[in-house]
Amino acid sequence: MGVKQAHFNLFIHAAGHHSAAWRAPDSPAENLVDLAYYQDLARTAERGLFDAIFFADGHSLSPGIAADGPLWHLEPLTLLSALSQATTHIGLVSTVSATFYTPFHAARMLASLDHISGGRIGWNVVTSMFDAEAQNHGMEKMPDHATRYARAEEFVDVVLRLWDSWPRESIVIEREAPGRYIDGSQLTELHHHGEHFAVAGPLNVPRPPQGHPVLFQAGASEPGRNLAGRRAEAIYAVAYDVESGQEYRMDVRRRIAAAGRNPDSVAIMPGLVTYVGSTMEEARARQRELDVLLPTTSSLRQLSTFVGQDASQWELDAPVPKLPPLEDFTGPKGRYATILRIIETEQPTVRELLGRLAAGGGHCTMLGTPETIADDIERWIDAGAADGFNLMPPALPQDVEAFVDHVIPELQRRGRFRTEYTGSRLREHLGLEVPTQTRPGA
Amino acid sequence: MGVKQAHFNLFIHAAGHHSAAWRAPDSPAENLVDLAYYQDLARTAERGLFDAIFFADGHSLSPGIAADGPLWHLEPLTLLSALSQATTHIGLVSTVSATFYTPFHAARMLASLDHISGGRIGWNVVTSMFDAEAQNHGMEKMPDHATRYARAEEFVDVVLRLWDSWPRESIVIEREAPGRYIDGSQLTELHHHGEHFAVAGPLNVPRPPQGHPVLFQAGASEPGRNLAGRRAEAIYAVAYDVESGQEYRMDVRRRIAAAGRNPDSVAIMPGLVTYVGSTMEEARARQRELDVLLPTTSSLRQLSTFVGQDASQWELDAPVPKLPPLEDFTGPKGRYATILRIIETEQPTVRELLGRLAAGGGHCTMLGTPETIADDIERWIDAGAADGFNLMPPALPQDVEAFVDHVIPELQRRGRFRTEYTGSRLREHLGLEVPTQTRPGA
Repeated sequence: MGVKQAHFNLFIHAAGHHSAAWRAPDSPAENLVDLAYYQDLARTAERGLFDAIFFADGHSLSPGIAADGPLWHLEPLTLLSALSQATTHIGLVSTVSATFYTPFHAARMLASLDHISGGRIGWNVVTSMFDAEAQNHGMEKMPDHATRYARAEEFVDVVLRLWDSWPRESIVIEREAPGRYIDGSQLTELHHHGEHFAVAGPLNVPRPPQGHPVLFQAGASEPGRNLAGRRAEAIYAVAYDVESGQEYRMDVRRRIAAAGRNPDSVAIMPGLVTYVGSTMEEARARQRELDVLLPTTSSLRQLSTFVGQDASQWELDAPVPKLPPLEDFTGPKGRYATILRIIETEQPTVRELLGRLAAGGGHCTMLGTPETIADDIERWIDAGAADGFNLMPPALPQDVEAFVDHVIPELQRRGRFRTEYTGSRLREHLGLEVPTQTRPGA
Repeated sequence: MGVKQAHFNLFIHAAGHHSAAWRAPDSPAENLVDLAYYQDLARTAERGLFDAIFFADGHSLSPGIAADGPLWHLEPLTLLSALSQATTHIGLVSTVSATFYTPFHAARMLASLDHISGGRIGWNVVTSMFDAEAQNHGMEKMPDHATRYARAEEFVDVVLRLWDSWPRESIVIEREAPGRYIDGSQLTELHHHGEHFAVAGPLNVPRPPQGHPVLFQAGASEPGRNLAGRRAEAIYAVAYDVESGQEYRMDVRRRIAAAGRNPDSVAIMPGLVTYVGSTMEEARARQRELDVLLPTTSSLRQLSTFVGQDASQWELDAPVPKLPPLEDFTGPKGRYATILRIIETEQPTVRELLGRLAAGGGHCTMLGTPETIADDIERWIDAGAADGFNLMPPALPQDVEAFVDHVIPELQRRGRFRTEYTGSRLREHLGLEVPTQTRPGA
């Protein structure tokens, strides 16, 4: 029996996941609204045989945050469609918020993209979190966490049913009189009237090539993990060490099994920040190169949002003040739990915590040579802490190029990563079956 | 002084605008969900130096209608993004409904597409019309006509302001400490609280290359013409003869002037159905070839929706029954007015009316040789009935290829059409200025 292979997504975010990446002299800060920048990144990831590229999404540009560095530029669904034309095999995953779209819009655009890309689309369903986003879509503030997840559960159900509502087989194209393009008896009208949505159906895009675009999910909260258990086909996780990765993966796999699904079919992919050098010293120098650009004022402001209290006056070289336990924290739980864990295991000063959080906000960080990083990746996978990683390069494009050119070949030598694409659809890269078609009336 | 040049859009719709086009033996009916089909059409239009390709849109698949022929397949915003990568100069116009999107979604996706395409996007704003569409987006039925237009007016205002809310010049990229990516003082928070929308702003996409994607509009009703007068930068019109073209164009130009804008800057482009042959007989044969495929039952059903009453039992070879006057008709006015005009001037039988409506639903039809069609086009333009046309080929791809290969060269010989693109943006093709940037606080 061979060793278990890894999966990799490239999480593309602005000039990189290190919040000071754009300030490097050679950063792509001037090009973040240019398609060519994203085309190059997508092609690099495809050269590395990654499973997919991955985009987060947000629906506001907060001027306060905007002053500190680039956030959003192009809208990810329209961007992925263009990127599908610059690539041939790699998967294309977009975040779509269940709070700001109607299920019909989301189902339609994702289905259309799946046709356009030849079956390479994934959908990372999120519930969004900022009032500033809600206020761009006519709401006063975000619905509470429980309402958002209840809405997301219903949203996903409806989208999956819409994707089944116009089967390809119904397009019969009988040209002879009396003439019939569609066999209407194969269409499904949903007549969905739920707590959050009313959707008649059917969808006006035929069933996508993948049956359903691949459903990604990320969520550390209880309702988030339940949604993952019921529905996710791949999971973007937060785990800062092997132990927290094991804990999360075991818990979610238990929920997947409890929902009657096969846990082995769901790739759990924690975020991964890497600093690659040909020596440890070179890798450390790479990290310092970025850390030194970090502005403390805005880093403390970001830390304030992570811990839900004002950290702007915290003493940089003193230990991190004691924080309330996880159960008393009402914001996003995943990152907060990681911060608590870093404090508990590393007892960092505030400045050291900022450095740890500056790239990827507390996701797993691997720093070293291609060989030591390949060792770390093997260790995570063999320990059951991950099925692969959502790569979050601190600075783009350099840190993904280093990974593709040096770490991927090392993993391939060890039999830990594919040496060619064996399929042309995202489901095939992830080893996922095409979902069975729901029959009308079933 | 030279002669006035024409503008042309290619209106891409399923297998063509003749409702029986898909039933022809060589029709592309099997390929309507394949990107390659639309890429070929876009390239043909670009070879013909057209101003733009144009997509309508609808948010439902009515099973009753679906049985008769193809309607929608791919979603137009995602489709246009991919098509931007198959072309280099031609404009890309998508219909976006002000009834089903939030202004933030519409502004964001269109701005993103304008960046992706290098400034080639146009937006055809519509209010939609079918309850089946509303029921896919959580409404019980469509808002009434007046409410839809009031909503559309506010929608357009907000979208235009969102496009101005994050100026390119605000991206200052000061890498040196303290470091500043955006000059926040140049951002505009809208804090819009209108009758239909609440939108905080700013947009999270920088101002588009064209300033604003080009605003297309089509609307024959009083509120539709007022919106055109106030806002439209190009107009897709319905005019079945020179007289109705003149009437519409004069009326809308009057409204444009009344709104303090220059009517000469707004191209009014009626829909145009063409049957091209090397002789008149060949052109007539081409039309018969499609007409003979027409199923009378569903044609009568479509006629029923056009005239707002059940026409299914009308006698095919009898004259068309007397219809209520325009002011008593509550559906879309433009097409109904055309039907009344056809009846008044041609006294057709029901069967003859069906033939007239089967391709383009009563839009202007030109049948003849490249020379006679060029004559007709010159006549429309010189009579002030049109500034160009939205070409609605009865069958695709053949009828646009015939137009590009035979009519366009004839118009070029007469100095009536460009012989190369002189700009790379849609605004340049249409002779439109880049709109002035609204300043914060202005």
